[in-house]
Amino acid sequence: MKVGVVGASGYAGTELLRLCASHPELEVVLATAGGHEGQSVGAHTPALAGAYPRLVYSATAADLDGLDGLDVVFLALPHGRSQTLVPELMDRVGLVVDLAADFRLHDPGLYPVWYGEVRRAPELLSRAVYGLPELHRDAIRGSRFIAVPGCYPTAATIVLAPLLEAGLIARPGPSVPPLVVDAASGVSGAGRGASEHLQFGSVQEDFVAYGLLDHRHTAEMEQSLGVPVLFTPHLAPMTRGILVTAYGRAATAAVTTLDALDALRARYDDEPFVTVVEEPPSTKATRGSNSVHVSTRVDPRTGWLVALAALDNLVKGAAGQAVQCVNIALGWPEGLGLPQAGLFP
Amino acid sequence: MKVGVVGASGYAGTELLRLCASHPELEVVLATAGGHEGQSVGAHTPALAGAYPRLVYSATAADLDGLDGLDVVFLALPHGRSQTLVPELMDRVGLVVDLAADFRLHDPGLYPVWYGEVRRAPELLSRAVYGLPELHRDAIRGSRFIAVPGCYPTAATIVLAPLLEAGLIARPGPSVPPLVVDAASGVSGAGRGASEHLQFGSVQEDFVAYGLLDHRHTAEMEQSLGVPVLFTPHLAPMTRGILVTAYGRAATAAVTTLDALDALRARYDDEPFVTVVEEPPSTKATRGSNSVHVSTRVDPRTGWLVALAALDNLVKGAAGQAVQCVNIALGWPEGLGLPQAGLFP
Amino acid sequence: MKVGVVGASGYAGTELLRLCASHPELEVVLATAGGHEGQSVGAHTPALAGAYPRLVYSATAADLDGLDGLDVVFLALPHGRSQTLVPELMDRVGLVVDLAADFRLHDPGLYPVWYGEVRRAPELLSRAVYGLPELHRDAIRGSRFIAVPGCYPTAATIVLAPLLEAGLIARPGPSVPPLVVDAASGVSGAGRGASEHLQFGSVQEDFVAYGLLDHRHTAEMEQSLGVPVLFTPHLAPMTRGILVTAYGRAATAAVTTLDALDALRARYDDEPFVTVVEEPPSTKATRGSNSVHVSTRVDPRTGWLVALAALDNLVKGAAGQAVQCVNIALGWPEGLGLPQAGLFP
Amino acid sequence: MKVGVVGASGYAGTELLRLCASHPELEVVLATAGGHEGQSVGAHTPALAGAYPRLVYSATAADLDGLDGLDVVFLALPHGRSQTLVPELMDRVGLVVDLAADFRLHDPGLYPVWYGEVRRAPELLSRAVYGLPELHRDAIRGSRFIAVPGCYPTAATIVLAPLLEAGLIARPGPSVPPLVVDAASGVSGAGRGASEHLQFGSVQEDFVAYGLLDHRHTAEMEQSLGVPVLFTPHLAPMTRGILVTAYGRAATAAVTTLDALDALRARYDDEPFVTVVEEPPSTKATRGSNSVHVSTRVDPRTGWLVALAALDNLVKGAAGQAVQCVNIALGWPEGLGLPQAGLFP
Repeated sequence: MKVGVVGASGYAGTELLRLCASHPELEVVLATAGGHEGQSVGAHTPALAGAYPRLVYSATAADLDGLDGLDVVFLALPHGRSQTLVPELMDRVGLVVDLAADFRLHDPGLYPVWYGEVRRAPELLSRAVYGLPELHRDAIRGSRFIAVPGCYPTAATIVLAPLLEAGLIARPGPSVPPLVVDAASGVSGAGRGASEHLQFGSVQEDFVAYGLLDHRHTAEMEQSLGVPVLFTPHLAPMTRGILVTAYGRAATAAVTTLDALDALRARYDDEPFVTVVEEPPSTKATRGSNSVHVSTRVDPRTGWLVALAALDNLVKGAAGQAVQCVNIALGWPEGLGLPQAGLFP
Repeated sequence: MKVGVVGASGYAGTELLRLCASHPELEVVLATAGGHEGQSVGAHTPALAGAYPRLVYSATAADLDGLDGLDVVFLALPHGRSQTLVPELMDRVGLVVDLAADFRLHDPGLYPVWYGEVRRAPELLSRAVYGLPELHRDAIRGSRFIAVPGCYPTAATIVLAPLLEAGLIARPGPSVPPLVVDAASGVSGAGRGASEHLQFGSVQEDFVAYGLLDHRHTAEMEQSLGVPVLFTPHLAPMTRGILVTAYGRAATAAVTTLDALDALRARYDDEPFVTVVEEPPSTKATRGSNSVHVSTRVDPRTGWLVALAALDNLVKGAAGQAVQCVNIALGWPEGLGLPQAGLFP
Repeated sequence: MKVGVVGASGYAGTELLRLCASHPELEVVLATAGGHEGQSVGAHTPALAGAYPRLVYSATAADLDGLDGLDVVFLALPHGRSQTLVPELMDRVGLVVDLAADFRLHDPGLYPVWYGEVRRAPELLSRAVYGLPELHRDAIRGSRFIAVPGCYPTAATIVLAPLLEAGLIARPGPSVPPLVVDAASGVSGAGRGASEHLQFGSVQEDFVAYGLLDHRHTAEMEQSLGVPVLFTPHLAPMTRGILVTAYGRAATAAVTTLDALDALRARYDDEPFVTVVEEPPSTKATRGSNSVHVSTRVDPRTGWLVALAALDNLVKGAAGQAVQCVNIALGWPEGLGLPQAGLFP
Repeated sequence: MKVGVVGASGYAGTELLRLCASHPELEVVLATAGGHEGQSVGAHTPALAGAYPRLVYSATAADLDGLDGLDVVFLALPHGRSQTLVPELMDRVGLVVDLAADFRLHDPGLYPVWYGEVRRAPELLSRAVYGLPELHRDAIRGSRFIAVPGCYPTAATIVLAPLLEAGLIARPGPSVPPLVVDAASGVSGAGRGASEHLQFGSVQEDFVAYGLLDHRHTAEMEQSLGVPVLFTPHLAPMTRGILVTAYGRAATAAVTTLDALDALRARYDDEPFVTVVEEPPSTKATRGSNSVHVSTRVDPRTGWLVALAALDNLVKGAAGQAVQCVNIALGWPEGLGLPQAGLFP
């Protein structure tokens, strides 16, 4: 299958190239990167030099034509740009997979509120499938336009949805506390562009919260879980990985850790990329793989439940989930070309 | 003043030696380290070679006599050992400063519950002052026995106590949620001893929770704050630093971020080692210094309050706080010999 | 093909399991790990939980029988143990691939000198093929016993051999300086076992030489290159990766950087896992992949040549090279199941 | 003493502020930072918020007048700017301490060659003292203009000068190899400005050479040591620290490791900031302190000598050495306010 990657020089684009290099059916024939037109992919990102010795970045603008007729096009651009690009692409390529936030929020009113920008092409919202296979596999099959979820919402939703569905967490509302989603991420979530606060000298030995009260993924979690969420992300001194530690009131005093673990196991026993673990999930265990590790505890002292999920933000939180969606959409084995084993150490 | 450091080869002991080397009044004349008797301090810990070219570790057991008559003795041992040591030391030295957990919990029944061990020397509990200067400065003045608080409780208490006192957080109880204290720490909190899960190859790129539901510092926080706490610590891939991110229901819908910041400022404006910051506090900003950085936000969407505190677990969370207590106990300027500026980058 | 991994719980063994999980022809049916008998692989190494949900470690001793008749057996044990194991295994399995040092040095007198231990089974030395495909591909084809090179010698040999062969470096001898091989490695080269100097708290922010003058890989480099080598390895604060920076006198004043780069290109243009780069090679670019990046410069000021090579010590420096040898020995495409793209960032 | 720091927002400037905060005689009254005029120092660099709660950056240009009459002015600017600033400052302040490269090379012809820029104010070169106390202490006493050495030259010179002086290394020349100086540095040596190759995502897990054959510190080493040098610096994934590993031919076959260690000890026994160690020096042992650790080995196999030196590039390699020079120039105890103990872990 002929594949195009738009925005191929960023972290998510680079990860798409890495995964496609090991995928038996996906062949990258076009990689665009504004500002790097004509540069060899391997010169810009030496990690790809061996796998793509001859691939050269095309410029985004000039290459919409180059995308014509491709089987799969991944969009790995900063949010806001897919809204103008997708309408032009939709009918020219086989499958559009958008890794940005543009088509994730179904309610057209939410995008302007959380992203501070105009909502363009709202008519396409209904054609975009939210690409979280563990919850929406059937909708992804045969789809031609997939909006890949954000990294934090993927982690939070996978561990919390079954616990809410099973009625183990008290459903937040006027007299019930919100879900408190505390999370930590490696710096690759912030993208490849240079900025002083992402310099090695700034990040190393630093653990710091950001996006207090207004991180955009809040809206995406609230959409997926259907309840109010208080979300606090942190930047951890590592490159990849997200850990979500979420808190909610247990539905009743009778709910136990065993109940909660059983609910996760019942839901995920057949899922190739979700592993329910008894020990606290570790981001490192998922690094480089498309796996999510989840666990949970119920605290009899306070009557609250703690839910934990770890994943690699660039794989299951972005490029890997995108490829998983392609595998499903095109009817291939869901795990085709996707690593299940993490890089350890 | 002649100083002894018992347990001088661990991380807290090493940090005590570092701080004493720059302190104009404290001269370390004895450093004990079981298992390292006779070894040069500088050979075991080259970072101290320049400052202590001739200091040699003594063995703990043989040197109780060596401690006789010293002005200040710091105990930096694993928990459980001070309980037998302090009764013997109390009347032989001028001031005992215990960095372990043995004498922190006032209720003698709590130690066995949280530490799983017998409570020895309960009669000394009433003589131990809880060495958190920002809350108990008066009690520390002139004291001869100080129990230095744990690292997590120091951070959590400093930021939460004023918010509870000011009535900005709904006081947890039967119908009010507990305080949710989520925290991350560098690995030095786990001590210097070798273990596979603390190897560089295990820690790097890993963010993981531990001590789920039963971390011992929970009891210490509940004692200091007087309310139930659900505490979840995490291990972050860094050496030093603690960040506490705590959540509680705002007392009323009228409470604002400004109210909460004002409460912190009112409480800490004159404190040399507490800085109220508007941006989220960063562990790196406190590294190597005795400073705590605190901030807070109130979320009008959910009606919850978020409180944050950062410190260096080996300084303000251990050795620095111990020296601060000594300065107060002996009537010296409180900041004598203690760094206020962090090592950046 | 049925595969056994002996010593599967160490870093090299873990990496073998990761690579086999993505290899279409290699199926791990037995993984031994002394001290972990009966433990689930995924519980000990969660990174492998998704790929090997049911694999359980066997004990080494009891499982020689379990290895009987396997097609491929990888030995990933500390050096010294293969010498007793291989004689028993050789005729019971299809192909033995030893990742230890035991059968690398052809001269039986060298092992006792550099490893300080008795040389056992010297009669097998002549049957062991030195598994460096770029230099000994023909010998590997059809072989049944392969000694996989050490990580440092792989890097040093790949970049230096062509420069020596092309006569660009003055061949060291009585009046010509030795090759000076300076190198840095991530900590995974030291293995997974716990030790204080490999704790995160010890390694982070530390760069330090070790094995001064007597590192065992010196002998292996001298064997491969045929000249005296002064080798100084360093420990860098990272998990994976080796960079070799080697120095030798240019053969004549006329030798240029271009000559030297051309010699590398001529030698490696068709090699799937060697990339000649113009910018200094970066360990990160090779992480997780089986690629080696090499480059070189000639200094007209001093008349010396600098040669650089980067690789991932656990892949091309161990498990990946082992799989590459298996691919060659069994007549498969050489790159089967082996990643060419590194994990970036 | 009233102190001004010009270029106070960079890493070296920040370190000067940290050290002055603990120095009993130096009071920073003016800190300039182009681009940050009017910003609170603590807001820009929270690590300094506790120590400098009220200090605000002034703009460089406007504040030459502000520097008038100060006792000590540190210049911590990118190279090239001191050349125009110093002529104006020299007669208006008590002591100028320049941390840039502008006045380090005595030969006015070298600056244009290595820095690619015009040599301004050459008449001031003869008034600048090269501020390496261990070699030039007498010249520093009473001086009014000090050029602080570069970080790499400080490390290389301190360990190599005594070995050359003692005749233990063959003096490089036409038939004798150059000194090969291989070194690794943390990223803070590259400054605080944002660039993609210094992002955490680029640096972590990367070890890479840079400045091949033409790094500017080569000329400074050749000036201090009086012999040709082949210098190869590397970037290590750490924030602070430099390790130099240098190689030279031993003068004769009779030279031993003991001879070489004795030469270092004889030279440095009374130096407060140089420690001769038997184990390989570690950068971490020097972090945050003004100490240099040195060691050496002679290889009887190859007849070559290896010399090693570790230091913190921002302290002994920049700001600490600057303060040490001030202490000497003004007749104070040399170690006043300077940490000898490193921050460990």
